[in-house]
Amino acid sequence: MYENYSAAVQAILKKDKIEIGQRIAVQKDSESYEGFLMPKSSGDANCLVLKLDNGYNIGIDIKGAKIKKLHEKRYVGNIKRELPKFDKNKPRVSLITTGGTITSRVDYKTGAVVSLMKPEELLYNVPELANIVNLDIISPFTKMSEDMAPDDWQKIAKIAATELNKDNKGVIITHGTDTLHFTSAALSFMLPNLTKPVVLVGAQRSSDRGSADTSMNLICSAYAAISDIAEVGICMHGSTNDDYCFFTRGTKVRKMHTSRRDAFRPINDLPIAKILPSGNIEIMNYYKKRSDGAVRADTAFEEKVALVKAYPGSDPDYLKFFVDNKYKGIVVEGTGLGHVPTSSKKSWIPAIKAAIKSGIPVVITSQTLYGRVNPNVYTNLRILFDTGAIPGEDMLPETAYIKLGWVLGHTKKPEEIRRLMLTNLVGEISERTDMRTFLN
Amino acid sequence: MYENYSAAVQAILKKDKIEIGQRIAVQKDSESYEGFLMPKSSGDANCLVLKLDNGYNIGIDIKGAKIKKLHEKRYVGNIKRELPKFDKNKPRVSLITTGGTITSRVDYKTGAVVSLMKPEELLYNVPELANIVNLDIISPFTKMSEDMAPDDWQKIAKIAATELNKDNKGVIITHGTDTLHFTSAALSFMLPNLTKPVVLVGAQRSSDRGSADTSMNLICSAYAAISDIAEVGICMHGSTNDDYCFFTRGTKVRKMHTSRRDAFRPINDLPIAKILPSGNIEIMNYYKKRSDGAVRADTAFEEKVALVKAYPGSDPDYLKFFVDNKYKGIVVEGTGLGHVPTSSKKSWIPAIKAAIKSGIPVVITSQTLYGRVNPNVYTNLRILFDTGAIPGEDMLPETAYIKLGWVLGHTKKPEEIRRLMLTNLVGEISERTDMRTFLN
Repeated sequence: MYENYSAAVQAILKKDKIEIGQRIAVQKDSESYEGFLMPKSSGDANCLVLKLDNGYNIGIDIKGAKIKKLHEKRYVGNIKRELPKFDKNKPRVSLITTGGTITSRVDYKTGAVVSLMKPEELLYNVPELANIVNLDIISPFTKMSEDMAPDDWQKIAKIAATELNKDNKGVIITHGTDTLHFTSAALSFMLPNLTKPVVLVGAQRSSDRGSADTSMNLICSAYAAISDIAEVGICMHGSTNDDYCFFTRGTKVRKMHTSRRDAFRPINDLPIAKILPSGNIEIMNYYKKRSDGAVRADTAFEEKVALVKAYPGSDPDYLKFFVDNKYKGIVVEGTGLGHVPTSSKKSWIPAIKAAIKSGIPVVITSQTLYGRVNPNVYTNLRILFDTGAIPGEDMLPETAYIKLGWVLGHTKKPEEIRRLMLTNLVGEISERTDMRTFLN
Repeated sequence: MYENYSAAVQAILKKDKIEIGQRIAVQKDSESYEGFLMPKSSGDANCLVLKLDNGYNIGIDIKGAKIKKLHEKRYVGNIKRELPKFDKNKPRVSLITTGGTITSRVDYKTGAVVSLMKPEELLYNVPELANIVNLDIISPFTKMSEDMAPDDWQKIAKIAATELNKDNKGVIITHGTDTLHFTSAALSFMLPNLTKPVVLVGAQRSSDRGSADTSMNLICSAYAAISDIAEVGICMHGSTNDDYCFFTRGTKVRKMHTSRRDAFRPINDLPIAKILPSGNIEIMNYYKKRSDGAVRADTAFEEKVALVKAYPGSDPDYLKFFVDNKYKGIVVEGTGLGHVPTSSKKSWIPAIKAAIKSGIPVVITSQTLYGRVNPNVYTNLRILFDTGAIPGEDMLPETAYIKLGWVLGHTKKPEEIRRLMLTNLVGEISERTDMRTFLN
């Protein structure tokens, strides 16, 4: 099992009875490291490969290193191999699994992250869930979130509506984190007359890792799903500690860090609630209250919408690509209050005019993410919005992209598209922005 | 002067002797507003137009509103109309003006922001500068920052090098804020052997506004320019109060809000220093120290580089646009740890392979902005990086875009491009990320 490690490394590991997959501490020079000993696939045979809690593998030359075993058993061996015993008297909630890290584990043979054999294995280590909810598990497909596409949002929305219309309290959807906020925005528009909670949840670390976030995220999600918050939202770690989750509106949230557990942050909004793993819910913002009535999935969506970035040196001709390829809408990530190059040799104004003239609505958002597009302050903004481009208000570029696809799925009339894009439908546009929402 | 306002509005304004441009308070229902009364160009003639301190114009129906004048004179009239009296015995610093809000004012006749007659007018209201530095003012051109292009960066770099090689302590460059961080990254690479400070500064509010940030930003910039920090950086408000500025490395900073004065935030780095308007400098991070030696502008730059975003539903065919149009490099904003759609019908992998095969380097960054691209954690990441794509480490997408342009200006050899992109040249790649850098 030590193959590809040098004889020197193997001797040390054998002497201390350290096996692949076990948690060890390594002291080297003035640095100390803690993580899981990984198998060696290639590279310097004298280097120990350690998976750190932040997800990175590092190689540490064995020379001069002090090694200490921290767990006797392989960490993966600590995971319970049975489902929580659900109680029919607890509130019924549907759990829809779609893939992602939350239904993955580290393969300690290869060091790669692989899908669980059965998605419901994600519950093995969370017996507490049985004290909160009676879960119905539905596993329509397994995809990493970078591979999600609009037709997946449609599938999920339809399944969620079907489940919500059963005699249950709410729905939890497990999902990869990379594009979780795209899906949460899509479901917000596709489930417009929601009467129960739809809680999206993922994990930044697979569940067999020391710093796994799956358990607390799932527990808080279960409390969100039986709460009276009838909104689509994302429920993930609010801080780097295991102290609380934020439940944040699906149109006002974004993955803001590649790897931190508290990567999902509200943008131009406060979280709807802070949810403690004790079940305590602290409301922080307005929300739609739980009510009666069937939920309808309204999934018509125009896929031919583009999201493009304007920046110094950017070529306006590439808007032509979208016009030539019969796109139906374009969302621009402008700079600052919504600018695009205007008075320079690479002005975007003629290309935007041409797109609008050929019937393609153009929505302007800001790459600053925080704040609000303003069509008035500067002359160049007036020139831009005189083309008929639609200001995206304080919508995230991602949210505006999804909203435009959804709106175009429902109407092709320019005035109606404009009206809908400027109207707050499901919380995507705030009338005012609370000062506390910046970098929260 | 009240034209386009209704007779009812005009009557009230005349009665209280309120003139266009004066600062007023308006009480309406339970809300109160404060700002400058703007002229009316169009719209409901019964609505007062007020420019709020956050830069927005709002319309308030006069019906039931209580109006109070706060300043007798038009606010613009309070600005001093003379330059500070500079003292030859103070440290000599060059001030290069390039345009932007910092050299603009509100035209209280039209409500639009217009350029100052002479750029040096930005100093009219900052007499304190004469106590700190002896400024030489150079005004090569006037552009709003959304219109800046790579050849402007080259011009500014050359002028900065010329000035730095005179007998002075440093350079201050005033610039629009929208793309200030693109210019700061460009100058970081174009002035690689810096021995003196290069301080970029802008304003989120024009200098005649109640909440103007020009004065403090300029004062802190002057202290930065005579400090021993020989780095290119941005010096702007660190908080929403007028209490301090951050001086942040030019490759690790980004405009994160459309309108707040503290919009410029360090990403994956701490600010180099907190600078108080008293001149107190609190060092927060490593930096290159002031030294002797000439500064060289190394401005070779390949303009045909693209910055594109990967997202659910994104069309890999639009990478083809850049290949077909003979682009020399592509930076992709991937999701999470650097993913692109991989196993779906719209997989980007074939298009990335094709680009690389035709000699175009592809660099992968993350649209999360915070954190670091990792080529190893997931199978899909390994598939992506097996194409030969270059991981952008913890570089901002904007910084990677500019770095690739600069690198391609110096070499076309694939292995050398790869080596340079993976090497920290001027602080753009951090070896480790301090926990405190997230949402700072």
